[in-house]
Amino acid sequence: MRTTLGWQADGTTAALRRRPLKRRDLRPEDLAVRVDYCGVCHTDLHALRSHDGDEVRPLVPGHEFTGVVTEIGPAVTRFSVGDPVAVGNIIDSCGRCPMCRAGQENFCHTFPTLTYGGVDRQDGSTTLGGYSREYVVRDRFAYPLPAGLDPAAAAPLLCAGITVWEPLHTLGVGPHSRVAVAGLGGLGHLAVKIAVALGADTSVISRSPDKADDARRLGAHALIVSTDPEQMAAARDRFDVVIDTISAPHDPGPYLRLVAMDGTLSHLGHLGPLTVETMDLLVGRKKLSSAGSGGRPATAAMLDFCAEKGITAEIELLPSARVNEALDRLGRNDVRYRFVLDMSDLG
Amino acid sequence: MRTTLGWQADGTTAALRRRPLKRRDLRPEDLAVRVDYCGVCHTDLHALRSHDGDEVRPLVPGHEFTGVVTEIGPAVTRFSVGDPVAVGNIIDSCGRCPMCRAGQENFCHTFPTLTYGGVDRQDGSTTLGGYSREYVVRDRFAYPLPAGLDPAAAAPLLCAGITVWEPLHTLGVGPHSRVAVAGLGGLGHLAVKIAVALGADTSVISRSPDKADDARRLGAHALIVSTDPEQMAAARDRFDVVIDTISAPHDPGPYLRLVAMDGTLSHLGHLGPLTVETMDLLVGRKKLSSAGSGGRPATAAMLDFCAEKGITAEIELLPSARVNEALDRLGRNDVRYRFVLDMSDLG
Repeated sequence: MRTTLGWQADGTTAALRRRPLKRRDLRPEDLAVRVDYCGVCHTDLHALRSHDGDEVRPLVPGHEFTGVVTEIGPAVTRFSVGDPVAVGNIIDSCGRCPMCRAGQENFCHTFPTLTYGGVDRQDGSTTLGGYSREYVVRDRFAYPLPAGLDPAAAAPLLCAGITVWEPLHTLGVGPHSRVAVAGLGGLGHLAVKIAVALGADTSVISRSPDKADDARRLGAHALIVSTDPEQMAAARDRFDVVIDTISAPHDPGPYLRLVAMDGTLSHLGHLGPLTVETMDLLVGRKKLSSAGSGGRPATAAMLDFCAEKGITAEIELLPSARVNEALDRLGRNDVRYRFVLDMSDLG
Repeated sequence: MRTTLGWQADGTTAALRRRPLKRRDLRPEDLAVRVDYCGVCHTDLHALRSHDGDEVRPLVPGHEFTGVVTEIGPAVTRFSVGDPVAVGNIIDSCGRCPMCRAGQENFCHTFPTLTYGGVDRQDGSTTLGGYSREYVVRDRFAYPLPAGLDPAAAAPLLCAGITVWEPLHTLGVGPHSRVAVAGLGGLGHLAVKIAVALGADTSVISRSPDKADDARRLGAHALIVSTDPEQMAAARDRFDVVIDTISAPHDPGPYLRLVAMDGTLSHLGHLGPLTVETMDLLVGRKKLSSAGSGGRPATAAMLDFCAEKGITAEIELLPSARVNEALDRLGRNDVRYRFVLDMSDLG
């Protein structure tokens, strides 16, 4: 086994502590990655603060990171030592089911192996995430980080980026689309950047009128204040696609009413049950979908697109030792727009 | 005012009684219709049995009927006395909003005027439905009944037919589609007939294995028994479109799991809140929609299609005096597949 350092919750509190971690010895298809930058995702917060029966402890979060290849197994052909590399929230899948064969490993019928809290398909161990200085990953689930993307600001593309790319891309957003993004956070600000880069007429829906400047700076054409009934009524039936990135449970009705006939509300950012009034779907023949992560081909395409358009996240970079502060502030939505941890303080 | 006879609930019980009804004198754009056949829809049952605060009494149900034009106003050009005619669940709309201008009067921004329990846009009176011998309707919302369609068996096309046509048509169902219809009732059996006529590989999902013969007779290629976990698992991700016509509240999850990647579950047959697990949508990028009725152009297109393909409902025709028996049996799902009332016993 290899050893590294990481930030771990041991089960008694939600706080993360610096701990030595074990990583497996390299299998033939494995890369060892020196983790340089790891984004802080809402999922990390949920995983740390949830206390349901099947929670996994010890827990090392982190599933959007960039770094450099430091060692390769003998069967690795796509990477060399020294290559910049990126890893997202899936690090293995069965490879044989119809979804895997279609390049949708995120929908693997045996459930994809998650980057943390998952179960390794070979040795049954629990996976430990990217809040650490080293990660060992099968080469199929590592992505070359395109040249020109800042590795710190690119880290969030591997979860937030692909999560917003999937609905925008599969719903055919392009120059003739009208898109609204509800919630201007980690997911939302990347949705705005990507929708704008795809050529769409893009608006932001936010509770806060004070996000108007940011929305404009990100390329959005308008801000709709969700607490203003007149603005919401004026935007009725206006958007082909509404990307709802609001992480707290909420009624999708007000956002469905902004969707144009035959359009789609794509719901991201939180899992669990969602209650919809069927009349809000029926009137205007609207559709509800939900998205999260993507398969290998889509992730690679998203990275290429972001490199071509110069898209990365707006980040606040902190030394990894300040991880608990970052999580606390994320819980209060006090971040514009994504925390990224600099792992170099782990040595 | 004109007088006719109809079947009316007066508020003390859900039972309908034969009563004289008033109809308005003809306006310039109005037709008087002798109602010959009126289908019995689940909506009628809901309207009669609901006891919420805003219920409308007296209530005369009925919103899928056929008959003959007996008189026309001076501005009517599309109909002559003696023409066979059909009327559905909408009898007016604003005509000016974007939805009306797009031929989606069913989504009129001021809410379409319903055939019963609606409010007339000119005199403010409450509309009384088609369980009666005469109806007076604005010509825009009457449809010529195509030759060759049996007027009794065609009556349910005006509500059940258009309700299933809308999702099948707008989701692009055709010869390369795989369609499943959940629930083989009034809506479901018409969905099967229309999907088969559109060329789709069509299956039925039912709790009852004893519907297999009926499903085959209607043109379906397979029956999946929803209470058999093995059959449901084997059908996972199989269908581009699943039409869910189950009228009782239920978890859409098992039906979403049968939808293929990027496919749609279209939910018909009951209104109100629907709770969906977002994971059931997310895995496979599936969409949820809801449908009910359609606009004027779609209704006319559906009638033409049904005439071309010889599609009508499978009905049990009863004299209108047996309306309460029909409603009781419908409440127990004891009908294959739609009751139609013969109004000639009203004189």
